[in-house]
Amino acid sequence: MGGDHGASVVVPAALKVLSQHPQLHLILVGDERVLEQKLQPYGQPERLHIQHATEQVLMDEQPSKALRHKKDSSMRVAIELVKKKQAAACVSAGNTGALMATARFVLKTLPHIDRPAIISALPTTQGHTHMLDLGANVHAQPKHLLQFAVMGSVLVAAVDNIAAPRVALLNMGSEASKGSRSLKYTAKLLADAPINYIGFVEGNDIYQGKADVIVCDGFAGNIALKSSEGVAKMIVHYAKEAFSENLFTRLVGGMALPVIKKLGKRIDPRRYNGASLLGLRGIVIKSHGSADVLAFAHAIQQAIHEVEKNIPEQISEQLVDILGMTQAGNH
Amino acid sequence: MGGDHGASVVVPAALKVLSQHPQLHLILVGDERVLEQKLQPYGQPERLHIQHATEQVLMDEQPSKALRHKKDSSMRVAIELVKKKQAAACVSAGNTGALMATARFVLKTLPHIDRPAIISALPTTQGHTHMLDLGANVHAQPKHLLQFAVMGSVLVAAVDNIAAPRVALLNMGSEASKGSRSLKYTAKLLADAPINYIGFVEGNDIYQGKADVIVCDGFAGNIALKSSEGVAKMIVHYAKEAFSENLFTRLVGGMALPVIKKLGKRIDPRRYNGASLLGLRGIVIKSHGSADVLAFAHAIQQAIHEVEKNIPEQISEQLVDILGMTQAGNH
Repeated sequence: MGGDHGASVVVPAALKVLSQHPQLHLILVGDERVLEQKLQPYGQPERLHIQHATEQVLMDEQPSKALRHKKDSSMRVAIELVKKKQAAACVSAGNTGALMATARFVLKTLPHIDRPAIISALPTTQGHTHMLDLGANVHAQPKHLLQFAVMGSVLVAAVDNIAAPRVALLNMGSEASKGSRSLKYTAKLLADAPINYIGFVEGNDIYQGKADVIVCDGFAGNIALKSSEGVAKMIVHYAKEAFSENLFTRLVGGMALPVIKKLGKRIDPRRYNGASLLGLRGIVIKSHGSADVLAFAHAIQQAIHEVEKNIPEQISEQLVDILGMTQAGNH
Repeated sequence: MGGDHGASVVVPAALKVLSQHPQLHLILVGDERVLEQKLQPYGQPERLHIQHATEQVLMDEQPSKALRHKKDSSMRVAIELVKKKQAAACVSAGNTGALMATARFVLKTLPHIDRPAIISALPTTQGHTHMLDLGANVHAQPKHLLQFAVMGSVLVAAVDNIAAPRVALLNMGSEASKGSRSLKYTAKLLADAPINYIGFVEGNDIYQGKADVIVCDGFAGNIALKSSEGVAKMIVHYAKEAFSENLFTRLVGGMALPVIKKLGKRIDPRRYNGASLLGLRGIVIKSHGSADVLAFAHAIQQAIHEVEKNIPEQISEQLVDILGMTQAGNH
């Protein structure tokens, strides 16, 4: 029910993904009258189920209030289904803070994990990279960043089939002398951990494909991601302006349209929709609130990938090895 | 002598700006043999002077070492000229950390200013905005962010002729509930100060022209700026790839070239080259290390603007009013 468009996007996206995955079952959680009405034009396929929920978390609602007072929200019920093993994953376009708080409360974090983190793929000139935390935590202590690094490394190894993903720390310079004392200490922790830590990267390195996993606190991750979105939007704004200036530029723009579309497809944020809430005892995927059908379908695909690769289990296993070891070494 | 290209860029940029400003005198500081050699093809105009300096700060040199051991570096001598009022401003493409450390040591900070900050103009869909700190300080306390806000407001009011520049704080959300406790406290300080504080902005708001001055600590500013550069480079990378795919796309690309060039000009980072080291008892402008002639000329122009507007004096005057008042109110 969440996101800017609610069931109007979720229902067609669910139908789209169901048609592509013959083994898949999907459960739509929300107001059954609304869901049935949205399904009417298409009919309800056998592998699509409805789970009624009487309430709905609003996009601007305080996470703590949603958690306390909306025990029958679509979000809460969906996460409870994961907890009860009746669903293998939960996908939501709803309120990020409420989703994180509810998932953490209902599912709990994995052993050795103090805080979950939000990770997403981002396009690069070489393909794509993953960055975390994208805003679950404002600040993070070195030990939390180490946990993020391990979780990110496990996810990327599994989903992208990379033996030893290159893990980097986001900093204001790539030299070892740069950044705060806390970040330098974090660098030491990561260098000592059995992950492929490659050092600091700067903001511009994110998009050059210098690392497979980029680790930062939620504040830096949010600033990097949102600034990037802002610049991309500005470039599109000025491109539209330049191409619509006069008859000639409009003509050229029309001719260039297939090229521009192809370019747009390479870096289309919808293809990167579906951030994972990593570190929970269950799979929870956050879709962008403004996602359209294509974008929400991508978020469902992301959930399928993580279910197939059994990500929480894998993280859990490797955490015992890696963090157990590192903590023994450092304390 | 600094930057990636040294005198090869600085000399032609100086000649270019001299020809545009009939009242301007420029002093080139550095190895006189190198400078004279670079000047040879052009001849030395009357308003161009040479100040010999025997040393040079390297781009990767530790600021503290440069400060301690290179007392006759081109950077140090140039800043000393400002100190001795023999120059109205210093422009350098050299090592940022060394420039900041040397400027701070030689010129000292203005009264009421604990730390200088780096400010630069950035393009927006509405024109441009200014952001600080872009990396002079890793972290900043609320009182430092207040000082940055006041300095930014004074600079933008003077340079852009805006009566009450809209000042915003960079945060991971625009709602008042978002961000760290320290940032929320900073918001209160800014709201109480006699500046036009408009609240929090997010990373994507930077490029939408929502504020005239955007305040953040050096870490966040660096991440925002570098991530933005990275995305812009990636888009250019994929655009080149898309337009060079086959004969048709190359043809369309050729036709679109004037449009693309115009678009590029709107957001050309060279037009925004020239960051100010604000808060010093003198004007120091930092050019990007990789600046070409056009970009370095812009940095010199920025110095001229600040000299004409007498920025340090203006900041100083308004600081006594604003910070004197605010500090009295808060302590």
